[in-house]
Order: sequence, then C-alpha cells, then structure tokens
Amino acid sequence: MPRYCFVSRVRPDQVDEYRRRHAAVWPELLRALRDTGWRDYSIFVGDDGLLVGYVEADDLDASQAAIQATDVNRRWQEQMAPLFSHGAKPDENWRHLDEVFNLDDQLATVSRDASRDEDR
Amino acid sequence: MPRYCFVSRVRPDQVDEYRRRHAAVWPELLRALRDTGWRDYSIFVGDDGLLVGYVEADDLDASQAAIQATDVNRRWQEQMAPLFSHGAKPDENWRHLDEVFNLDDQLATVSRDASRDEDR
Repeated sequence: MPRYCFVSRVRPDQVDEYRRRHAAVWPELLRALRDTGWRDYSIFVGDDGLLVGYVEADDLDASQAAIQATDVNRRWQEQMAPLFSHGAKPDENWRHLDEVFNLDDQLATVSRDASRDEDR
Repeated sequence: MPRYCFVSRVRPDQVDEYRRRHAAVWPELLRALRDTGWRDYSIFVGDDGLLVGYVEADDLDASQAAIQATDVNRRWQEQMAPLFSHGAKPDENWRHLDEVFNLDDQLATVSRDASRDEDR
C-alpha cells in the first residue's frame, strides 16, 4: 500500500493547543477516517510548529476527497483553522513530499535479484 | 511498535543526487538496517531539501546505536555528508518530532471504551 508524507505549519503559539486537541480526536472523525481508507495515520509536531503527517492509503486523493465530503471533517477543520498560520481549511494546505526510499521495498528487490542469480 | 519521525535538510542543489543515491541503497546497508531493528523505514524529500524520515522500532535509540556501530553505515554516511548543509555525520543531525496522533491507537481506545459501556 502506498505511503504518503505531508507537511504543514501550526502557529508556534498554538502547538500545545494542537497537541491537546489531537490527544483525543472525536470518535466520529476517527471512524470516518477509517471508513474512507486512511491507514497507519500518524501526525508528528515539533515545538516550532512543524507538522508532519504520515499515512498509508490505496489512493490518498480518493481518501482525501471522501473525508472532505463528510460533515464531521468540515466541523473539525473549522475548529482547527485558527491554529494554523495559513488560516482556512488546514487539510487543503498540505505540502506533499516524495518518498525516495523504503527499506522493505528495497529489501524485497534485493532478495528477488539474489534468488534470480541463484537460478542461473 | 512505537513510530518515530525525524527531519533534516538536504542541500537544495543536491536533492536530485540524494534521490538518485537512495533509489538503490547498498544491499549490505539494507540488511544491516533490518538486522538492527529498523521497520517500515521510509524517507521523503521535498524539492527545497526538507527531508522527513519515518520508522518503526521497538527501541530507536538502540537501533540507531547498533547501525552506527557498523562499518557499512560509517562508509554510507561519509558518502552522504557532502549532500547535507550541516556537514559531517548526517544521521547524528536528525531532529525528532513528537507523535501527537495515531489513528489506530485512538480507534482502539474508542472501541475499548464502547465495549466497556456495553458491559455496564
């Protein structure tokens, strides 16, 4: 399953509040994320407000469109917006980074090559 | 298994080179990472050089000490150092971010609470 990473910025003076709210996310939103295909989803934050999201999904664009169509996500994002420097709709202001390395994928390639060599 | 996120900075003019070298990491290093407890390890990079690492490990401090004690890692890090702004030993210049949210953990808490309520 593809892995994705995105970054954003929480207002430095709102990092504690961001942590507090994410310590117990609304159960309705948790279930909506699960039902729209979000897997192994974690959020990490630094004291300066640097935010990193990591998630696995069959199709993140589809999962993002599906969660954004829910009422619970609209309500959640409205409450989160003041914590972000860029204001409205925090979940539409993500910057995606490219995966350049994955240990398991490269180990799999290496063992495939090794068994191919043995077959010769 | 605990999840970890760290950030670093590749020199913006070396991002393409960083990608190129990480597209096929030395098999010896891949196996050393696996053998020292690195799991689901991915690296993501942005065009400006922002680097994010995501990894799962029973004890990342122990896994980091173990990989840093290997000769193959010493050789790899020597080759990577010129690609980083902060110079020597890129793998000792990581900044760790705190996990503030994990979907699976919170879903598990919610279903535990729900079944406890049903038992009443």
